Amino acid sequence: MENNIPPLDSLFHALADPTRRAVVQRLGAGPAAVSELAEPFGMGLPSFMKHLGVLEDAGLIQSAKTGRVRTCTLNPDRLAAAERWFEEQRQLWDVRYRQLDALLGAMQGKPE
Amino acid sequence: MENNIPPLDSLFHALADPTRRAVVQRLGAGPAAVSELAEPFGMGLPSFMKHLGVLEDAGLIQSAKTGRVRTCTLNPDRLAAAERWFEEQRQLWDVRYRQLDALLGAMQGKPE
Repeated sequence: MENNIPPLDSLFHALADPTRRAVVQRLGAGPAAVSELAEPFGMGLPSFMKHLGVLEDAGLIQSAKTGRVRTCTLNPDRLAAAERWFEEQRQLWDVRYRQLDALLGAMQGKPE
Repeated sequence: MENNIPPLDSLFHALADPTRRAVVQRLGAGPAAVSELAEPFGMGLPSFMKHLGVLEDAGLIQSAKTGRVRTCTLNPDRLAAAERWFEEQRQLWDVRYRQLDALLGAMQGKPE
């Protein structure tokens, strides 16, 4: 019934927060240093680092340190995995809607 | 930076659980009674009802009682809202990839 890949849990959990979604959105435009990423949010760096940790655990971003600067990069493959789940669901409703449509057509005596 | 629609938080939170995703998937095939939905999960009805409550709070499903039977229905519009968020992100990376591609072309002296 469910292809129970555990990462999907952590992935959706990571996206259930506006700060984390904004970070994903920002990184879509290219890699950024942690200090630059943190700037718009006006929260303490420890809290912000916790958000980055959740995104990193979910595989949505990765980070690397060069000298004193830690730079974060988006991992679009993980977002694509989540998007695929929605596509699968949509295909299911599409089948159902076509069935309902055919049924309605039959009830109205229309040729299918 | 972020179109901070609060329901997106509850929506992704609702989907961060395999039982709840399986319920969404099942309801994609058509409405179902709570007892039928609960059957595959082997959990107590109170725990299962809690999962349905989270899905209902997120607007992903709705339920109605007829006599002694409560029937749940999927709300595909809410899933579509979440899917749209992914589409928006993808458009952002696409712009970036096209830019990188143009840059690479220019570095290699290829005409764009």
